[in-house]
Amino acid sequence: MAITDFQQELSSLLPIFQPASIAIIGASNNPAKPSGQPLVSLTRWGFKGKIYPVNPKYQTLCNLQCYQSLKDIPGPVDLCIIAVPARMTMPALLESAAKGVKGVIIFTSGFAEVGPDGAEIQREMTRLAKETGMRICGPNCMGVFSSRNALMANFSVTDLPDHVLVPDFLGFISQSGGFGVAIYEIIKEKGIGFSHFVSTGNEADLEFSHYMGYMAHDPHTRVIGGYLEGIKDGQKFLQAADMALEKGKPVMLIKAGRYPASARAAASHTGALVGSEKVYSAVFKQKGIIRVESLEEFQVMLAVLAAGKIPRGKRVAILATSGGSGVALADKCAHYGLEVVPLQKQTREALDAILPDFASSANPVDITSAIMTQPGLLEQCAQIVLGDTDVDMMIVNNWALHGDQSRLEQMTRVSARCDKPILNLVWGPEREALAAIRYLNDQLVPAAREADFAIRALTSLAEYNNFVHTRLNSALSKPKIAENAREKASEILDRFPPGSQLTEYTAKQVLRAYGIPTTREILAATAEEAVNAAKTIGYPVVMKIESPDILHKTDAGGVFLNISSETEVREKFQVLMDNARAYKPDAVINGVLVQEMLPGGTEMIVGIGKDRVFGSTVLVGLGGIFVEALEDVALRVVPVTPLDAREMLDELKGRRILEGLRGQPPADRQAVQNIMLRVSRLADDFPQIAELDINPLMVFSEGRGACAADALIVIA
Amino acid sequence: MAITDFQQELSSLLPIFQPASIAIIGASNNPAKPSGQPLVSLTRWGFKGKIYPVNPKYQTLCNLQCYQSLKDIPGPVDLCIIAVPARMTMPALLESAAKGVKGVIIFTSGFAEVGPDGAEIQREMTRLAKETGMRICGPNCMGVFSSRNALMANFSVTDLPDHVLVPDFLGFISQSGGFGVAIYEIIKEKGIGFSHFVSTGNEADLEFSHYMGYMAHDPHTRVIGGYLEGIKDGQKFLQAADMALEKGKPVMLIKAGRYPASARAAASHTGALVGSEKVYSAVFKQKGIIRVESLEEFQVMLAVLAAGKIPRGKRVAILATSGGSGVALADKCAHYGLEVVPLQKQTREALDAILPDFASSANPVDITSAIMTQPGLLEQCAQIVLGDTDVDMMIVNNWALHGDQSRLEQMTRVSARCDKPILNLVWGPEREALAAIRYLNDQLVPAAREADFAIRALTSLAEYNNFVHTRLNSALSKPKIAENAREKASEILDRFPPGSQLTEYTAKQVLRAYGIPTTREILAATAEEAVNAAKTIGYPVVMKIESPDILHKTDAGGVFLNISSETEVREKFQVLMDNARAYKPDAVINGVLVQEMLPGGTEMIVGIGKDRVFGSTVLVGLGGIFVEALEDVALRVVPVTPLDAREMLDELKGRRILEGLRGQPPADRQAVQNIMLRVSRLADDFPQIAELDINPLMVFSEGRGACAADALIVIA
Repeated sequence: MAITDFQQELSSLLPIFQPASIAIIGASNNPAKPSGQPLVSLTRWGFKGKIYPVNPKYQTLCNLQCYQSLKDIPGPVDLCIIAVPARMTMPALLESAAKGVKGVIIFTSGFAEVGPDGAEIQREMTRLAKETGMRICGPNCMGVFSSRNALMANFSVTDLPDHVLVPDFLGFISQSGGFGVAIYEIIKEKGIGFSHFVSTGNEADLEFSHYMGYMAHDPHTRVIGGYLEGIKDGQKFLQAADMALEKGKPVMLIKAGRYPASARAAASHTGALVGSEKVYSAVFKQKGIIRVESLEEFQVMLAVLAAGKIPRGKRVAILATSGGSGVALADKCAHYGLEVVPLQKQTREALDAILPDFASSANPVDITSAIMTQPGLLEQCAQIVLGDTDVDMMIVNNWALHGDQSRLEQMTRVSARCDKPILNLVWGPEREALAAIRYLNDQLVPAAREADFAIRALTSLAEYNNFVHTRLNSALSKPKIAENAREKASEILDRFPPGSQLTEYTAKQVLRAYGIPTTREILAATAEEAVNAAKTIGYPVVMKIESPDILHKTDAGGVFLNISSETEVREKFQVLMDNARAYKPDAVINGVLVQEMLPGGTEMIVGIGKDRVFGSTVLVGLGGIFVEALEDVALRVVPVTPLDAREMLDELKGRRILEGLRGQPPADRQAVQNIMLRVSRLADDFPQIAELDINPLMVFSEGRGACAADALIVIA
Repeated sequence: MAITDFQQELSSLLPIFQPASIAIIGASNNPAKPSGQPLVSLTRWGFKGKIYPVNPKYQTLCNLQCYQSLKDIPGPVDLCIIAVPARMTMPALLESAAKGVKGVIIFTSGFAEVGPDGAEIQREMTRLAKETGMRICGPNCMGVFSSRNALMANFSVTDLPDHVLVPDFLGFISQSGGFGVAIYEIIKEKGIGFSHFVSTGNEADLEFSHYMGYMAHDPHTRVIGGYLEGIKDGQKFLQAADMALEKGKPVMLIKAGRYPASARAAASHTGALVGSEKVYSAVFKQKGIIRVESLEEFQVMLAVLAAGKIPRGKRVAILATSGGSGVALADKCAHYGLEVVPLQKQTREALDAILPDFASSANPVDITSAIMTQPGLLEQCAQIVLGDTDVDMMIVNNWALHGDQSRLEQMTRVSARCDKPILNLVWGPEREALAAIRYLNDQLVPAAREADFAIRALTSLAEYNNFVHTRLNSALSKPKIAENAREKASEILDRFPPGSQLTEYTAKQVLRAYGIPTTREILAATAEEAVNAAKTIGYPVVMKIESPDILHKTDAGGVFLNISSETEVREKFQVLMDNARAYKPDAVINGVLVQEMLPGGTEMIVGIGKDRVFGSTVLVGLGGIFVEALEDVALRVVPVTPLDAREMLDELKGRRILEGLRGQPPADRQAVQNIMLRVSRLADDFPQIAELDINPLMVFSEGRGACAADALIVIA
């Protein structure tokens, strides 16, 4: 699906989020029931559109006329909430379709999550949505809340919040109703305004990615958050992520199901395809999605963003009131990847001028107990430190004292004057500390009790900012791929039926079509041809058996290296043939591949894989024992950008090998990256390639390129 | 220092912790000043011993006679607190020594932490303590607090706590006064009783390890905690840690200075030798010391221990009230190393009998919203799950609702009946959640808001329990080292002056004395001798130049492998000699080492290193590119136990190579461990060995042993 199709599709979500009229099938006026909550809340909080309760048991509900059935409603219905028992759900859905309803939210449970019968009904829902264009949220969901239009089309958010510091801020999408509401409650309490809150349920029709794409375009949502267990359509998710990037909206996701134990639980929970953690992790990196590990971290991120700030880099200054706490915070900052940088000379001089002798103007700055005796010292120090152009953000450790508002006010003033993020870590007795955090929070000054997640939140935001910046400004160029590459590769690949495998000789032809260097080689049917081939290529040569039935050539005694004479070529030709027949008597043998013997280099592997959610992936690793002993590979989904390729190599544990160990010159990383990009293009052009292994890719020293020494392609 | 000496030394700390009489030099009655706080607090809280204020300015202070000077005090003085300006400190100290005072606490700052002059005075303090036996706490410290005798010999803890759930529980030692007090306040608030709180200051005499050893023996301390930047005397710390292990007291330390940035800050803070993080980390592992990463984690650990519980293993059951929260918690548990195990069949059946159909009895158990409609369901489920013998601990996610005490009471009852730890993760609005946590905490039921650190706390305790258990029950035997090993090695090593290096030939003699297999080899002075040597050893052989002046033999063209004939021996002998002279014309050449050519195996390295705090260390790594590209080495301080040796191999990133990759048989781990233990003994016997490198140690397949192919020893 092209991105424009998906974008167009998103307009079909408007009736869900901005309906002019809502019908509630199974409505009641009991706010303790899912069927009663929407009606009670919609009327109470003044939803501006039309509200039609539908329930044959009542004449009126909440002072509104109650309809016997949907078709009795006089005007059109944009959105219909279905809150009836499972067995009545499908009829209600058909009725909705008949009425021309544009969007439906199904609260009812008992479908795919309970077993095959439920799953079958759910598939009917999906079919109906596809046929009619009527969009479905749920089933088995808690519904939708939007704040601007008081759209209480759910049974979890029943009140408009009374304490909103930043309205129209966070759009939140949850694949768990209960957990999502827990997150909603905790974040709401901090004064963060939700533009929308969506519980997605079983996603019979609308998926996580639809809501994400919708919020990316919604002018009243500034950041997007979510609880995610698994994506159904990887391409839609990638497109939604691109939209959020395009619109400059950070996406912060809690992604569960990382480990087998939790993935199993997630699968049984929503029936979601959890997919490979490694691929999700790659996708998040590729799209700048911020992975949230805890609610505390999420709160700090939101507080920093709500204050309209973001760290421009990772350089942090620490302002502490005791030496020990400064050291402990420096440890945490270093641990999570911030740089505790030296302060500039003039910064230190300015600090020394106001700090007592026994204080320290180094980073971490130790103000000492002078903070208690010199009024305004905290503010002065903070101001000086923030003026340092080597500092991207500041962390202050603040000891909460009952009745001592001065320090909090000082920090508020400093924060208001500066566009660098300032994080206050507040220690002290619980009551005082929480009161201090509340005060700071209300002034939009980020504050927390524990260092770890708060510091990680700052790190993640700095990384996000760096990602956005690098992505926009990256001058890395894409390799030029020959215009006829696709056509040439197509000619070869189209010959192979699904499930078949291409031999080395054929696979390398595909690689060459895409400009990927391979060994020079000639396929020889006879010993005589092999001798001529060796002469053409030049001694020494490598000889390999070429057979579609022998893919693990080494196991079959099918490879000889370093052959340096005509006699040896003749001899090995015969041995190869004999070995092949012994290994697999009925093997079809195409001949013997005579190829150049490559000089020494670093062995790597580059390949294509398939993820059932996100499709083709490109992977790279250090060859041989590194892959086997350490699983040292980096992976991205296709298409891979030049920036991705560079980061993939940086990600390898054994990357120092590429820098040149033991006096070796550095390896030609550029060449490897270039090949990775060509492989990505190949994967993108031919989704039928289930697997490609270039193993080994011999990488030579800087400027000398790399060469595919062996290759294998498997068709899906 | 032998362990018994250190133990005896600890009795000299009694006057610091249990003085019968305290003098305060520079006393005042102003509780806002460090000089006033001890006097005010000691009198107010009823310290039972004698209190002598000393200050020429007063006749009486706090209704006590005030003395002009220490010598005017009629009786003996056990403990003297010095709270005078820096320039008056040394005189006060000398006066204390003259009076026969047994322990001194010096609050005063301005010594080693401010510069060389202060450091010189501090060295005088150290000398005085050594000469007189008078022990010193500080200078630049906040002093000592002990709760049983109301010993308020400090200026930070001024009150006896009014809310102690578990008295005589935690002894805490802090190398930062300010940060230590912050920790004290936060932990105290949770009802954890402190037996002692010590701020160690600059440690002119008494060190962190002294206090730790004292608390290990103190019958009123059940667990030991601390904030540590650096240890001065590694051996004392190891002994104190052994004492705590012996007495069954968990030691939980916040260790700062892990990264260069924070280590620098720590060094400038207390002048402590921060030492190598890798070595501290090894020591903590070897002594079962629990590393605490955050205060939240510390609180949960204390809560679990205070309830008298500890997880017997890492198998956890999760009880959740929504599918999503169960999945998210399972993720966290897996991430921190707990095992989310399948529940037993009868457990699941019992759960299924009481849970609604749409709930899940798998682990994580999803009770669903039935928790709200079925009273007592939480307690029933918890009871069933805890009865599962495959479960070591339980985590419950509890949603705090205003006025809903029932679930909290249910959890309290369950917890009281069971010796498995139960952790409650309480979500919900801040006020309600904190009230619920307080309630549970007061019933000694561990509870927290955020999952991460709480789960890590459980993991750490399970690991501690496992460590203690394995250590006691480990049937691993030590290798028998020949009785004359030390004597034989001594004969060789004593010939080498400090700073010198032993060649391969000599170093291997030392190894053989300790039963470490080496290549068979003969030193040949002439080509003729070399030929004979090769005959004796058997072809093929290796030939290496043997010279104390050529330590990097390969660089000098000084190594030839796989020599298989007499002619070749003669030829290579000459080449070796020529190369050596060309490389270093004035090199002393002992001859040529003719040695057996080892069959293929896994290359490893085993060695000895020196840490300036903890002394000799043993390290092991995978040889070649693994060490260089990944720094893949494991390290322990000497003496290494059989358990340590096993864990060191498990710690290697490339450990799978030892299991046998690519169809190779597994390597002989036993042989490597055996060699590591022999190397440890060698290091222990000869502290003058600054460095030993066995590189490579060729490791053969299981049962076939290992052999030192090359070796080098450097004398300190």
